Amino acid sequence: MKNPFLHMALYTDFYELTMAQGYFYSQKHHDHAVFDYFFRTNPFRGNYTVFAGLSTALSMLQAFSFTDNDIDYLQQQGFKKEFLEYLGEFTFSGEIYSVREGEIVFPNTPLLRVEGNLIETQLIETLLLNTLNFQSLIATKAARIKSVAQDKLLLEFGVRRAQGWGGILASKAAIIGGFQKTSNVLTAQRYRLEVSGTMAHSWVQAFSSELEAFRKYTDLYGNQSVLLVDTYDTLNSGMPNAIKIAKEMKEKGQQLLGVRIDSGDLLAKSKQVRRMLDENKLEDVSIVVSNQLDEYAVDKLLTNNAPIDAFGIGTALSVGMPDAALDGIYKLVEVNQNPTMKVSDDIAKTTLPGKKELIRYYNGEDKFEADGICYPWELNNNSYFYLTDINTRMETHSSKKENLLHKVMEEGEMIVDLPYPYESQEYFLERFAKLPDEISSFDHQTFYKTGISSGIKELQTKLKQKEVPS
Amino acid sequence: MKNPFLHMALYTDFYELTMAQGYFYSQKHHDHAVFDYFFRTNPFRGNYTVFAGLSTALSMLQAFSFTDNDIDYLQQQGFKKEFLEYLGEFTFSGEIYSVREGEIVFPNTPLLRVEGNLIETQLIETLLLNTLNFQSLIATKAARIKSVAQDKLLLEFGVRRAQGWGGILASKAAIIGGFQKTSNVLTAQRYRLEVSGTMAHSWVQAFSSELEAFRKYTDLYGNQSVLLVDTYDTLNSGMPNAIKIAKEMKEKGQQLLGVRIDSGDLLAKSKQVRRMLDENKLEDVSIVVSNQLDEYAVDKLLTNNAPIDAFGIGTALSVGMPDAALDGIYKLVEVNQNPTMKVSDDIAKTTLPGKKELIRYYNGEDKFEADGICYPWELNNNSYFYLTDINTRMETHSSKKENLLHKVMEEGEMIVDLPYPYESQEYFLERFAKLPDEISSFDHQTFYKTGISSGIKELQTKLKQKEVPS
Repeated sequence: MKNPFLHMALYTDFYELTMAQGYFYSQKHHDHAVFDYFFRTNPFRGNYTVFAGLSTALSMLQAFSFTDNDIDYLQQQGFKKEFLEYLGEFTFSGEIYSVREGEIVFPNTPLLRVEGNLIETQLIETLLLNTLNFQSLIATKAARIKSVAQDKLLLEFGVRRAQGWGGILASKAAIIGGFQKTSNVLTAQRYRLEVSGTMAHSWVQAFSSELEAFRKYTDLYGNQSVLLVDTYDTLNSGMPNAIKIAKEMKEKGQQLLGVRIDSGDLLAKSKQVRRMLDENKLEDVSIVVSNQLDEYAVDKLLTNNAPIDAFGIGTALSVGMPDAALDGIYKLVEVNQNPTMKVSDDIAKTTLPGKKELIRYYNGEDKFEADGICYPWELNNNSYFYLTDINTRMETHSSKKENLLHKVMEEGEMIVDLPYPYESQEYFLERFAKLPDEISSFDHQTFYKTGISSGIKELQTKLKQKEVPS
Repeated sequence: MKNPFLHMALYTDFYELTMAQGYFYSQKHHDHAVFDYFFRTNPFRGNYTVFAGLSTALSMLQAFSFTDNDIDYLQQQGFKKEFLEYLGEFTFSGEIYSVREGEIVFPNTPLLRVEGNLIETQLIETLLLNTLNFQSLIATKAARIKSVAQDKLLLEFGVRRAQGWGGILASKAAIIGGFQKTSNVLTAQRYRLEVSGTMAHSWVQAFSSELEAFRKYTDLYGNQSVLLVDTYDTLNSGMPNAIKIAKEMKEKGQQLLGVRIDSGDLLAKSKQVRRMLDENKLEDVSIVVSNQLDEYAVDKLLTNNAPIDAFGIGTALSVGMPDAALDGIYKLVEVNQNPTMKVSDDIAKTTLPGKKELIRYYNGEDKFEADGICYPWELNNNSYFYLTDINTRMETHSSKKENLLHKVMEEGEMIVDLPYPYESQEYFLERFAKLPDEISSFDHQTFYKTGISSGIKELQTKLKQKEVPS
């Protein structure tokens, strides 16, 4: 099935188009450019970020073209004939290097590099930022929840509070970051995810009694049934009715899957509900909870031994509360083989010039130790300067290291198979297991070691002197 | 042009479908149901909310249908043949009553009411919540910025940090809430908005000098040019170059539109930049600022007399920071003419049973004084009980009042013309002017008066006794 969201060349900032036309009429469309994608701050006051959105970005890039309708609209906006003819034929024909979807990444390191002519590399800026920023935000939120959820089942329930059609990708990114199922049917269909959901309070209200509502549901759905027990009164009505139904099912050789609690003190209620189930020999009936959960609530519940089997998590996950955005940016680092940079009074905001590699080093326990950014000719150099403290040397001693940037697109064609979200999740979990505990913890802010090579440091200094006029 | 985004019946929570099938096989599909949409808390610790998203919701509802592909997918998920045949023919055929797009609204009051058979009213829940929650959030954020922006130009620049495809609707909602232009080309095209944007730092970096970059741009774009002056050094490089260009343009009978500052201390910088422009007799050149702005930053800048003509606002607006979601809900209030409610230990979370009207009262100064919720037969009663303090009477004395809920859909057909965002903005601004200052202020949290009728109060009490089993 054709995905309409992939064909949206106009879903971009207007200035990408005014600049593209400007490059065109300045005879710069054959200039060669290199752009880096990176972000400046880990979301949620955390120590890491989960990179996500790559497969969406590459799919959209591959489909990127301007329709006749788009061209007509741009003509009305004053764009000129020759440029519009160029746009009408436009496809992205450059190279892209990227870290893998689901990779654990850190601030101010180049995560994706685009090489091509100046127009094409500029035109895709907004697309890349919009896609990578959001999915990385949500995958990171999911990862934080996953990191405290032990072996419990995690269900994404956020589409009703998601940011409009952003919810399509929120559900996908939640799976990448470790969630098992989603309630979002469209995303489940499109990305081959397991879908989840049973009943709302309205179901219970729609019948003349709660017992009838439960019975009608289990008659139809049998072993897949999860009964929502808090429409009227969890302990005095919902649970007695659910237990009655569960026993009836047992007699028929069926098994009630679970009960869901969606309000109140989930710690106390889950313990009471578990006790009631166990007293009725319903040890196999699961407890699902929902209602304004996030990583802190899940952690607190499980730390206090709440007998919960599954968490349904919506809003906080699907909109990435409280941050709601990742500050990813896309910066020009090279034009016609000449490194360039955006200068800033704040050294941390000065970009890293030129085409760079991102190297990950392992420590003696086979965990991630540090990420180094260097030029291709510095790959054998293991000495860096801290990104956070540019005058201090960061040494890496390990022999085990890997290059994180892989070529994913060549002359505009994808040269890798796009992973489905569960495959990216598998990669994410494998990588997450390599993160030292002090980094994966979100109780304390710790900095993962990241550094730049002496070559980058020298060029930065040199360019700063050159590019700032006296 | 057909809008593919409107055809997404599967963009829903799975349980809407399991419940729909359950109603179908429980012979309840001809039961008549009434649902209310409302939210519980004003976003941003504010005193009001701007209702938005109605035209998207109605467009999506009118287009709501299941494709063969959707049906195939649902069959794979275990849905049964007769129900799938029913879904294959499904269209929404109910009635919808709603407050107007751009209306100023308050917590716990019914803003949209859906009437129809139980299946159809249930099936559209997620669509309504996803659409109304998000656009109302963003329109409210925009309104807050507008309320402190005096007569300055407001430009929405958020698509790069927007929540994926949610940005399409974020830009639309920002316009409803008072923004004049957007950088988002797709949304501008689709909803007939003015589009805005000129250049990024990469433009300046792509040329051999900043002066050349500026000159090439103004050669092409003339009077529409806004030069970004902070790529290297605003005061020592960007501004001298911009002034040089502006003077050259003057000699040619042209006029530089503006300069944009995107970093640093915007108050100090805008004052220095204004002084430099004025000293060079460039009083007509505007100053545009951007970089992590929100209502507090804009207010502070203008209160301190920053000589700024236009604000470009992105992330905080387009994702609705810091809340990121509005807590709107959709609750069943009547089945087959019998009022119903969801009970909660928290009286504020107990829903208001039955089909209700929402009446707005004006005070003696022709400003909004209070909103009252009542049954249709209580329209002449001006005495209520405070929603926030259910045992205290809320009296309204004014003779001027209006019914806020209007029929917008009848038997599944829209019976109103859908407003374009600028029309909704016009309505919003007209209504916003009627808001008392203490409510429109966001410095202090004040409660707008909202109440329920004695009829509602009595029925709530009665149903609570009846529906909670002893």
